[in-house]
Amino acid sequence: MTITPIEPGSTLGILGGGQLARMLSLAASRLGLKTHIYAPEADQPAFDVTPYHTIGAYEDEAALSAFSEKVAAVTYEFENIPVSCAEIVARKTLLRPGVEALRKTQDRLIEKEWIASLGLPVAPYARVDSVTDLQLALSGIGAPSILKTRRFGYDGKGQFKLSSAADSDAAWAALNGYPSILEGFVPFSCEVSVVVARGADGAFAPFALCCNEHADHILSITHAPANLAASLQDQAFAMAKTIGDALNYVGVFAVEMFVISKGGTDHLVINEIAPRVHNSGHWTMDGAVTSQFEQHIRAVCGWPLGSAELLGTCEMHNLIGAQASDWQHILSNPQAHLHLYGKADIRAGRKMGHVNFVRPL
Amino acid sequence: MTITPIEPGSTLGILGGGQLARMLSLAASRLGLKTHIYAPEADQPAFDVTPYHTIGAYEDEAALSAFSEKVAAVTYEFENIPVSCAEIVARKTLLRPGVEALRKTQDRLIEKEWIASLGLPVAPYARVDSVTDLQLALSGIGAPSILKTRRFGYDGKGQFKLSSAADSDAAWAALNGYPSILEGFVPFSCEVSVVVARGADGAFAPFALCCNEHADHILSITHAPANLAASLQDQAFAMAKTIGDALNYVGVFAVEMFVISKGGTDHLVINEIAPRVHNSGHWTMDGAVTSQFEQHIRAVCGWPLGSAELLGTCEMHNLIGAQASDWQHILSNPQAHLHLYGKADIRAGRKMGHVNFVRPL
Repeated sequence: MTITPIEPGSTLGILGGGQLARMLSLAASRLGLKTHIYAPEADQPAFDVTPYHTIGAYEDEAALSAFSEKVAAVTYEFENIPVSCAEIVARKTLLRPGVEALRKTQDRLIEKEWIASLGLPVAPYARVDSVTDLQLALSGIGAPSILKTRRFGYDGKGQFKLSSAADSDAAWAALNGYPSILEGFVPFSCEVSVVVARGADGAFAPFALCCNEHADHILSITHAPANLAASLQDQAFAMAKTIGDALNYVGVFAVEMFVISKGGTDHLVINEIAPRVHNSGHWTMDGAVTSQFEQHIRAVCGWPLGSAELLGTCEMHNLIGAQASDWQHILSNPQAHLHLYGKADIRAGRKMGHVNFVRPL
Repeated sequence: MTITPIEPGSTLGILGGGQLARMLSLAASRLGLKTHIYAPEADQPAFDVTPYHTIGAYEDEAALSAFSEKVAAVTYEFENIPVSCAEIVARKTLLRPGVEALRKTQDRLIEKEWIASLGLPVAPYARVDSVTDLQLALSGIGAPSILKTRRFGYDGKGQFKLSSAADSDAAWAALNGYPSILEGFVPFSCEVSVVVARGADGAFAPFALCCNEHADHILSITHAPANLAASLQDQAFAMAKTIGDALNYVGVFAVEMFVISKGGTDHLVINEIAPRVHNSGHWTMDGAVTSQFEQHIRAVCGWPLGSAELLGTCEMHNLIGAQASDWQHILSNPQAHLHLYGKADIRAGRKMGHVNFVRPL
């Protein structure tokens, strides 16, 4: 297969205008590309780093077509772009990663079934469309377990943790009767993720396995590399490669996993896949030879991937809500790498920025 | 002195729209700032990385005033901004570095006289306003020597090298009778530069002394650190500190120097000062904890400077003219950090981008 690379000077389209689109655009600019952002709302963080944007609904076929005609290729910053939107774009221009990655990941049930079908380990799960389904699922999976909406959940939204079968009615009510799945609670020793890039030529470049700490269901701190056996990282890379190859994926994606300690050995269970650059990969901006954002742009352009090598022992701290007010204190540490997303309003739970620390290996 | 820092979310103005403005804007965006570019011509490289720009002459007082009112502070990307322009801006808003840095550096004669007045070493020089002046100057300074226009010279433009006094008429004709200076040719063993940042609080953060190779009078390769005695770097830092303190300078500047070997020891002679981020500091984008662009933005905002520590042995290769066509080959080296400026037309002698290589120390 011959891959025609996109030329520097071309314009890349990005669906979504949040901080991930912003950082993708900055990486693209460094490489001599232009970017055009497509997002449904005004005042998006990515609108401040390029002169080119379209405000349009993800359902607006005319606006999406016009956007697609202006760009050499399109990518997306998150997995909740409607499949119909991706299909419109893919008919007009090159969409990387493709429609299939969205289809497989934006519905938790489809995602679980698909991961399991690849022979990869997932937590026990069951489809729940009614409170009766939920009670049945609980009798199989048991408690504690977590009821999650199949679609549009993130950062702990659309989830309810059940301590016993007695919580069924409350759980079903809390999720407003949306199609859901019940997932068995995995007694993990830690949460890890692997962020990897796959090139248009099938090249595979994984960043170091990293370990994630959450607070209020939102990523708080990432440590890279994870302080775990090398064999576990090898397992994680192999799983990610299986997933990437199965999708013929082009770009960066993340696989979130739980580490389970059983009988003295650790093994991995996949939690979910994010078909995009990922918060747990932000440490690569200062801690890897090539950042996840540059890797994604290289892949989307059909260019060779850069080195994913680690530059040191890295820690990424998210700045959530009012934590961003601390910018002066952060800047007073000359080793701290501050990244702010240009969001005007500080709101509780809102990702405002992050700080990276890198200590030489 | 209390320094009121500029808040993230504010807009910085940049005079000039070339690659230096572009890279300053990208660094500012990373820190959560917006930028507004002011330049006299359309289609500037920096216009592609922000939605905010003004096309206006540097003499257009109304346009400059309107621009100044939209931003929290203004900086400039090069030293040939007219002093009158800087004065208009400085009356309306915070200008960093200030007007004085332009006054001292945009005229080679004033610059030399001022550097010499600080007790710092420069090559022999003489003012030349006529061919008679030139002949007189040659009798004192001798040949080989170089006649340079006092203003608006860069990358070898506006220069004529004289091998003997017989070249006087040709030299004077070549410079079209512009006010000039004659500089004694320094038999240097190498050309070095030091790029330093000075904060609004007077903090001083020098990047490693680096060694520069030129081709056709244009910077071709920078090596950092320079392979020279540590004492020479100390001398260079001390000279830069003297210069920065004398100007009460805020921001990044570069001092270009010649290394002269005399009687077995090396010493430094200052060639020129650039009151701005500098091509010989581009290696810091991948080879230092904080890049020169981020340092400049931090200084302009009244923020603490970041660490200027070296991350490895660095090499920066400029991509001049058609060298940029080599982008695919460059990208195939996974350790190469490619930076392209988004310039549409490849022209001989035009700076199109650069590549950094960093080997761990």
